[in-house]
Amino acid sequence: MSAKIRIGIVGYGNLGRGVEAALAQNSDMELAAVFTRRDPSTVKRRTAGAATHPIAAVDRYVGHIDVLILCGGSKGDLPEQGPALAALFNTVDSFDTHARIPEYFNAVHESAAAAGHTALISIGWDPGLFSLNRLLGEVVLPQGATYTFWGKGLSQGHSDALRRVRGVKGAVQYTVPVSTAVESVRRGAQPQLSTRDKHTRECFVVLDDGADAQEVRQAIVTMPDYFADYDTTVNFITEEVLKRDHTAMPHGGFVIRSGKTGTGSEQVVEYSLKLASNPEFTASVLVAYARAAYRLNQLGQTGAKTVLDVPPGMLSPKSAAELRKELL
Amino acid sequence: MSAKIRIGIVGYGNLGRGVEAALAQNSDMELAAVFTRRDPSTVKRRTAGAATHPIAAVDRYVGHIDVLILCGGSKGDLPEQGPALAALFNTVDSFDTHARIPEYFNAVHESAAAAGHTALISIGWDPGLFSLNRLLGEVVLPQGATYTFWGKGLSQGHSDALRRVRGVKGAVQYTVPVSTAVESVRRGAQPQLSTRDKHTRECFVVLDDGADAQEVRQAIVTMPDYFADYDTTVNFITEEVLKRDHTAMPHGGFVIRSGKTGTGSEQVVEYSLKLASNPEFTASVLVAYARAAYRLNQLGQTGAKTVLDVPPGMLSPKSAAELRKELL
Repeated sequence: MSAKIRIGIVGYGNLGRGVEAALAQNSDMELAAVFTRRDPSTVKRRTAGAATHPIAAVDRYVGHIDVLILCGGSKGDLPEQGPALAALFNTVDSFDTHARIPEYFNAVHESAAAAGHTALISIGWDPGLFSLNRLLGEVVLPQGATYTFWGKGLSQGHSDALRRVRGVKGAVQYTVPVSTAVESVRRGAQPQLSTRDKHTRECFVVLDDGADAQEVRQAIVTMPDYFADYDTTVNFITEEVLKRDHTAMPHGGFVIRSGKTGTGSEQVVEYSLKLASNPEFTASVLVAYARAAYRLNQLGQTGAKTVLDVPPGMLSPKSAAELRKELL
Repeated sequence: MSAKIRIGIVGYGNLGRGVEAALAQNSDMELAAVFTRRDPSTVKRRTAGAATHPIAAVDRYVGHIDVLILCGGSKGDLPEQGPALAALFNTVDSFDTHARIPEYFNAVHESAAAAGHTALISIGWDPGLFSLNRLLGEVVLPQGATYTFWGKGLSQGHSDALRRVRGVKGAVQYTVPVSTAVESVRRGAQPQLSTRDKHTRECFVVLDDGADAQEVRQAIVTMPDYFADYDTTVNFITEEVLKRDHTAMPHGGFVIRSGKTGTGSEQVVEYSLKLASNPEFTASVLVAYARAAYRLNQLGQTGAKTVLDVPPGMLSPKSAAELRKELL
């Protein structure tokens, strides 16, 4: 038996590839296998080594994988895979449909607890590290307000929405925090901010041949849920420019807690991320929490858990004594 | 028996007064008693209610206090009080002599574990929330560098050092992060920074009658450990100005982790604090962790622990289900 923590990856898109890269930075873990919905022979892997299998083969790895990292999407993949795979393995996933987390938690918990597995759900940065900071903010400054800003960054969901508009051949959407709003929050002003006050949306769109730019623009800026509540800018570009300038997946954001203590002392806590690659960063968070999932399971702490349940020291390969000496 | 968590405060300086104020913001806790080294009849309390006692009376409160918050200093008070009081109560303290934390941890652990108590040591922001962020940074971005900057803020230790210089009647010292260094780190440049590169020290000094300003300045800027390794500015002011402009205790700082993932994507994580009152903020952190100390003890998790051992959700008065719904 290997002394390293054996990791399996389910789903080999940007996130799965990011997990494979992150494992190479953590010498106490090793990649055991990658599972994909595609024909494994068509999958071009990032590193050599562990095999690529169809997802259906995953149960053959029971006993040979310590933690399975689920890299599928929150809409189509995880609601089914999460509970099903937590019955077979310890798991970590990045389920990020905020409103459905309680329901997803319950489904995964039931499955994981019955099987004696540990399942860390909704790991990443939001939900994930941002959730952790929203918690720390409100417990330390109970009288105050919490603000979350996202961006500047590429939003996958909003880019997908653009691509569904008739006349759009290709598109990306960037979410941009409004800097005057951020500065006001940072100063401790605790402003009331509407959706429109906090973020703007910048779209870069390639039109289909013969499509009418004005019609496309109108369809975008009036789209409910996605764009209607925001100040939205639509820039039309060529396919060449889209490929040249808009393939990176940067993101980031801020969680700011502004509160008062004593007789009115203003205290401001800010957590911020500036990410050149959103999927690679999320993948790195998943890998650190995979270590914790393995350890929690070894301690008999089974069932579903979130970032709010994990003692931070369990994320590190170092011993508690080393951490106290180096980090406190 | 009260349904609230009953808190005792040991030491009634700025930190103890801050804890008293923070308890008023947390409705699931109540102040049971304050213990002081001074004559209790001379202590002017911030709130009415719980009694003020000499420290020697603390053992009369065994069974009537759930968690004792130790607000004494790390040099003179805690090395003795920490282990002694962890034998009688669950405790939380802000022991902050970084180099001696392992030794202090062991002494408190032995005492707390033997008595079945839970003792959270070195709680506050540094050590404390900054330690937590140094940990999160290095586990999520294993290939990178961590930078801690402090200030702009009043340093108690350096102010005390100024006051020991012959010819100094009164003084305060502010630690100031060098903004070009901070910006370079934020950009992801991972610079090598010396002590002098990271912080400057600004002193505001009131001279004794007849003292020589040049001699005092020279004694300050050449003082080993405290000032010699820094660019230090000494400003001479009147006692009136010292009292008018320099009695607040602002502080703050930044923990920045800069790392690379995948094939070189730059990722920067920053945690920052901007505090109008350092002791009140530290006190607020102590109070949130007192809640966790109580709960950990109820779960049978005894002995000494640090911020790195506490599951974050235990800091909140809300249930795990509420937290998942509201914060994830």
